[in-house]
Amino acid sequence: MKSISIGILGLGTVGSGVVQILTEHAGLLENRVGAPLRIKRIAGRGEARIPLAPHLYTRDLMEVVRDPEIDIVVELIGGTDIARTACLEALNRGKHLVTANKALLAEHGLEIYRVAAANRVDLGFEASVCGAIPILRSVREGLVGNSIRSIVAIVNGTSNYILSQMTDSGGRYGEMLAEAQAQGYAEADPTLDVDGSDAAHKLQILSSVAFRGYVPFEAIYVEGIQGIDPADIGFARELNCTIKLLAIAKEEGGVLEVRVHPTLIPQSHPLASVGGIYNAVHIVGDSAGPLVFSGLGAGQKPAASSVVADIVEIAHNILFFRPSRSSLLPTNAIESVMRVKPMENVLCRYYLRVTALDSPGVLSAVSHVLAENGISIASMIQKGRAAQAAVPIVMLTHEAVESAMRRALETIDRLEVVAARTVCIRVEGMEE
Amino acid sequence: MKSISIGILGLGTVGSGVVQILTEHAGLLENRVGAPLRIKRIAGRGEARIPLAPHLYTRDLMEVVRDPEIDIVVELIGGTDIARTACLEALNRGKHLVTANKALLAEHGLEIYRVAAANRVDLGFEASVCGAIPILRSVREGLVGNSIRSIVAIVNGTSNYILSQMTDSGGRYGEMLAEAQAQGYAEADPTLDVDGSDAAHKLQILSSVAFRGYVPFEAIYVEGIQGIDPADIGFARELNCTIKLLAIAKEEGGVLEVRVHPTLIPQSHPLASVGGIYNAVHIVGDSAGPLVFSGLGAGQKPAASSVVADIVEIAHNILFFRPSRSSLLPTNAIESVMRVKPMENVLCRYYLRVTALDSPGVLSAVSHVLAENGISIASMIQKGRAAQAAVPIVMLTHEAVESAMRRALETIDRLEVVAARTVCIRVEGMEE
Repeated sequence: MKSISIGILGLGTVGSGVVQILTEHAGLLENRVGAPLRIKRIAGRGEARIPLAPHLYTRDLMEVVRDPEIDIVVELIGGTDIARTACLEALNRGKHLVTANKALLAEHGLEIYRVAAANRVDLGFEASVCGAIPILRSVREGLVGNSIRSIVAIVNGTSNYILSQMTDSGGRYGEMLAEAQAQGYAEADPTLDVDGSDAAHKLQILSSVAFRGYVPFEAIYVEGIQGIDPADIGFARELNCTIKLLAIAKEEGGVLEVRVHPTLIPQSHPLASVGGIYNAVHIVGDSAGPLVFSGLGAGQKPAASSVVADIVEIAHNILFFRPSRSSLLPTNAIESVMRVKPMENVLCRYYLRVTALDSPGVLSAVSHVLAENGISIASMIQKGRAAQAAVPIVMLTHEAVESAMRRALETIDRLEVVAARTVCIRVEGMEE
Repeated sequence: MKSISIGILGLGTVGSGVVQILTEHAGLLENRVGAPLRIKRIAGRGEARIPLAPHLYTRDLMEVVRDPEIDIVVELIGGTDIARTACLEALNRGKHLVTANKALLAEHGLEIYRVAAANRVDLGFEASVCGAIPILRSVREGLVGNSIRSIVAIVNGTSNYILSQMTDSGGRYGEMLAEAQAQGYAEADPTLDVDGSDAAHKLQILSSVAFRGYVPFEAIYVEGIQGIDPADIGFARELNCTIKLLAIAKEEGGVLEVRVHPTLIPQSHPLASVGGIYNAVHIVGDSAGPLVFSGLGAGQKPAASSVVADIVEIAHNILFFRPSRSSLLPTNAIESVMRVKPMENVLCRYYLRVTALDSPGVLSAVSHVLAENGISIASMIQKGRAAQAAVPIVMLTHEAVESAMRRALETIDRLEVVAARTVCIRVEGMEE
């Protein structure tokens, strides 16, 4: 029987996990695929961290990419430089590709998809979004008969861990980031996780698959969690809400809004209880209705689980599909580019925390500015006179257009009675 | 281009939903499949309930099954009699089959699977478990690289609605069942839903796919929710728990425990907040870790969404697979029959409510019986003296073997100080 030969690029956390699963579950996988999966070569940097037969291991990526016997290349290097070169070379040599590289796909996806399609090979990237959760195949296959209406998701475990810890302990952002680093849930340089870029990468991939059109990465609005203050987490709780970093994509009339930002959601929202390093996707299909998928968004074995699922699907395709088969990727995601609504036109509800001098007329002045911009207040928390000169006025607005809110905020922050920059957090999932 | 011809058996709720999706999304589906999906014939009882071209509709099922042009037969009749005959006939005529019929698969699955395999056709049954949730393909494909460790699931929306209403309102079972019937969430004869049979059907199918071996339906232990008393829902709340009808399957050393029964779970459990008619599956893979999938478990469009996903997958297979392809069904599910642990040997924690005369020595007598059977008490609620002669003593035990618990209950209920049958509810997801 033909065996399927696999070449692995990168032997870090996920790479080692993939080697482990392919080794430990060799029998089970052969049974499920219909042929043995054979690791032909592995390329890594420095000494191999796990015990390997010497002929398997090389430090030269291109030795693996160019090995004529290899059917499937698995790219687990990360980054957009060497990884891009290696992936394109593999595709151009007719090899199927599995990658967990969200930055590569989000920033160079169109190129990768096109080269894969031109070479008629499969491209699997389940592990690039939400670790162990089989969200891409669920959307692509399980919901194939649906028009997707919306996606609201927690896709970055590090941010979710930090916000969960801030919520549970009342601690400040910096302290909780340090704790996340100590626990191994945040990297030494956590920028991509906490500034929303990583979440935006994943949203680019997930929304392109779900809405079946390429979503330009640059079109995604991104805000991180660095500015979140314990005061806002406390007020959110008073409003029966919690703050999460959400990746949001909504379709209306063929136009998409795609955005990543800290978001106030009601405690009763299905994503509110998703704590720690978990990821979760709330997705609405026109027929299926609302679905929620949750699980571990990162980690050696969870990510490797999704890589192996892609390897198995491609191996199965190699064995049983006709050469004329369509690729794993919905081809229309290559051909059409999604129209994205400018952030200025997005409509949502807002949480505002105005820091005002405790003087008469403040509320009147602030609400006047909001009214002038067509924004109406739904509810308010105003605490009794405090010891400090400045007091917080917390408001939830009804739906308003982003551009109107930005104009209102500029005016509010120039009021003499306003003592600090107004905090503005978007709200999701709250009935009007 | 070849079109794929579909024959539909049954034009009830789900059947009409499938026709609607195939009609409204014809363009989208053609694009995704790579060929048009054409409804060739539809068979139903009486007059067609939706507007159809007359040549499409017949009251003779076999006209559809025997139509040589039909590629895929979609069985949405339900029941195990006519449906079984029609499905077997379709398979034997080399037609691929999609069915939402959980009773048929749970009770005659082995026969259906074998006939499908013998005829080298595909069999899709995503809609038979958890409505819109793509749980079968997620387990079969997304978690293909995992050994599944456990499944704990809410798979019957009617029972979940009744228990949720009892929890929210404090109402009695009979009242809440009547309300569920008034809302259209329970049928006139709700037996299969409330006695656990429907949940057991779904567990049979889900566990056979997940553990890749045929689970004999008769081996599943089943208890329904008819005996649940508002008192126990109240005590569950005092213990920070809630009561759900759960379908549970756990694997250890190649042996499965499979059971459906009302279950006490902590409020913090991911399934505790799944209310109303929603379904949810908590599944643990050895690599993926814990995953939760939730969504609408029934209803016209949600169920039709999963039927259409199966139609699309099979249509794609017809177009692009080699004739030697493997079937949608993991073939090892046909070949091996799972070993199932007898219920007597199952180990779990228990909630007990003993109704005892309010006299000295009661607690001592009851705890003596438990101790004699090797069962130790983890915590207890004993209310102060009540107006009634009999008072409840509520206990949570540590892990105990079912057979020991049954012996203990028999002895306890024979004690003179015990005034009514002791309520015993199994506990899941609570740390020791």
